[in-house]
Amino acid sequence: MNKIITSSQNPLIKQLVLLKEKSRQRKKSGQFLIEGKRELSLAIKGGYKIKTLLFFPDLFSESEAKAMSSYGIEIIEISKDVFQKLAHRDTTEGVIALVNSKNHNLEDLKLQNKNPLILVAEAPEKPGNIGALLRTADAANVDAVIIANPKSDLYNPNIIRSSVGCVFTTEIAMASSEEAIAFLQKYNFNIFSAILQESKPYHLQDYTLPTAIVVGTEATGLTQEWRKAATQNISIPMQGVIDSMNVSVAAGILIFEAKRQRDFK
Amino acid sequence: MNKIITSSQNPLIKQLVLLKEKSRQRKKSGQFLIEGKRELSLAIKGGYKIKTLLFFPDLFSESEAKAMSSYGIEIIEISKDVFQKLAHRDTTEGVIALVNSKNHNLEDLKLQNKNPLILVAEAPEKPGNIGALLRTADAANVDAVIIANPKSDLYNPNIIRSSVGCVFTTEIAMASSEEAIAFLQKYNFNIFSAILQESKPYHLQDYTLPTAIVVGTEATGLTQEWRKAATQNISIPMQGVIDSMNVSVAAGILIFEAKRQRDFK
Repeated sequence: MNKIITSSQNPLIKQLVLLKEKSRQRKKSGQFLIEGKRELSLAIKGGYKIKTLLFFPDLFSESEAKAMSSYGIEIIEISKDVFQKLAHRDTTEGVIALVNSKNHNLEDLKLQNKNPLILVAEAPEKPGNIGALLRTADAANVDAVIIANPKSDLYNPNIIRSSVGCVFTTEIAMASSEEAIAFLQKYNFNIFSAILQESKPYHLQDYTLPTAIVVGTEATGLTQEWRKAATQNISIPMQGVIDSMNVSVAAGILIFEAKRQRDFK
Repeated sequence: MNKIITSSQNPLIKQLVLLKEKSRQRKKSGQFLIEGKRELSLAIKGGYKIKTLLFFPDLFSESEAKAMSSYGIEIIEISKDVFQKLAHRDTTEGVIALVNSKNHNLEDLKLQNKNPLILVAEAPEKPGNIGALLRTADAANVDAVIIANPKSDLYNPNIIRSSVGCVFTTEIAMASSEEAIAFLQKYNFNIFSAILQESKPYHLQDYTLPTAIVVGTEATGLTQEWRKAATQNISIPMQGVIDSMNVSVAAGILIFEAKRQRDFK
């Protein structure tokens, strides 16, 4: 028999709603929620440990849910009310999971390439931008993404959604900018900071050695730490009337120039 | 003496609210609203004709407003209530203008470059994506943007906002895909359609001749017309677990590869 929860007042459901809504709660408990089939399968692929799977049988088949129980995952059937209480999105597939967070320490990064390519984003604010950066990182198959001076936790539902699940399959570390710089210097990365001051055009640089491409926010750019730590500051020539570019577009242009130079290997 | 409107029930204000909210109303009247100083100054720079300027004196100085009247612009002072009724954004600068639309015909495009670079976006749906595409087009100073099979009018408040006003300074034409293809072929453009079928990697193509780079939607890609009309179909090598990329990021990568080959001239 399945365990069935039909009341939003159930203590577990209340706890899950908190996890959905509160970054602090996610950090404290080391757990978060994943919604949707595709996201869930990418999380499994990314080595995340699923503790509990909750499904609403009108939208997600019981047999599919039960197949998960063979992996030691607790399966709970939920009512429509409870599902709507937990769901973050409008279009969803009737399945929500309670999952253990990862640590995202710098030293845990697995860099398999001899000449790794890393994307560093300092203090990205909008979940949509973080999601787009992670999609670009995925498409380019960069070795890792470092989020420096993070403003939010990684398991914000809007980051998960806008990354289309890439947040689970990309190697990601979170650290202060100082720690990230120390890490990159320790492993002899060339650091290319996207910053106007003392910069050279991005397309005239060599990205074929171990490379970190560092982008800041649209509003304030990078902190001076990154300017000072840079092997070379780089900029994208801006030839229009507006002097800024969407950060995920800029990161895409820089990362794919590095990939082009590496012949996409 | 300024003309002053303090009631949201004023017929002009009711008409302006309709223009803000209804694409159909904008098309029918050939007019739309612009909000904010920066956007307004870019529209003037882009040659748009401002008919009426409405300002809320707590946020926008009367002297600044009056300076506009020397250009034959009607100036109207509005109350806080009226301003809030008209304003689309939270953070704004107390100024809204009624402006005449442009036609955006293909044959009106001014292509000044001998080897023009054009970005074509087919049926882009989200205003935010259109805005980001226009920002990229501005940064690269492409000769023109063609929106093929448009899904919305260009003067949607969310397009204006997300383009940061680039919508006013970029040469933009709107047309059916069929008309756009005929236009590009007539002027001997090489057409590079971003489409997987029969495609070659984007970075191995030559974009130094008259070039149109054509992108479709994330959901459905380009229509077959563009595949058939292409000089060469191109694709960005995708090396991750996700098989799609944000359309504005993809367009940025393609456009800036063309710019790189042209040495940003």
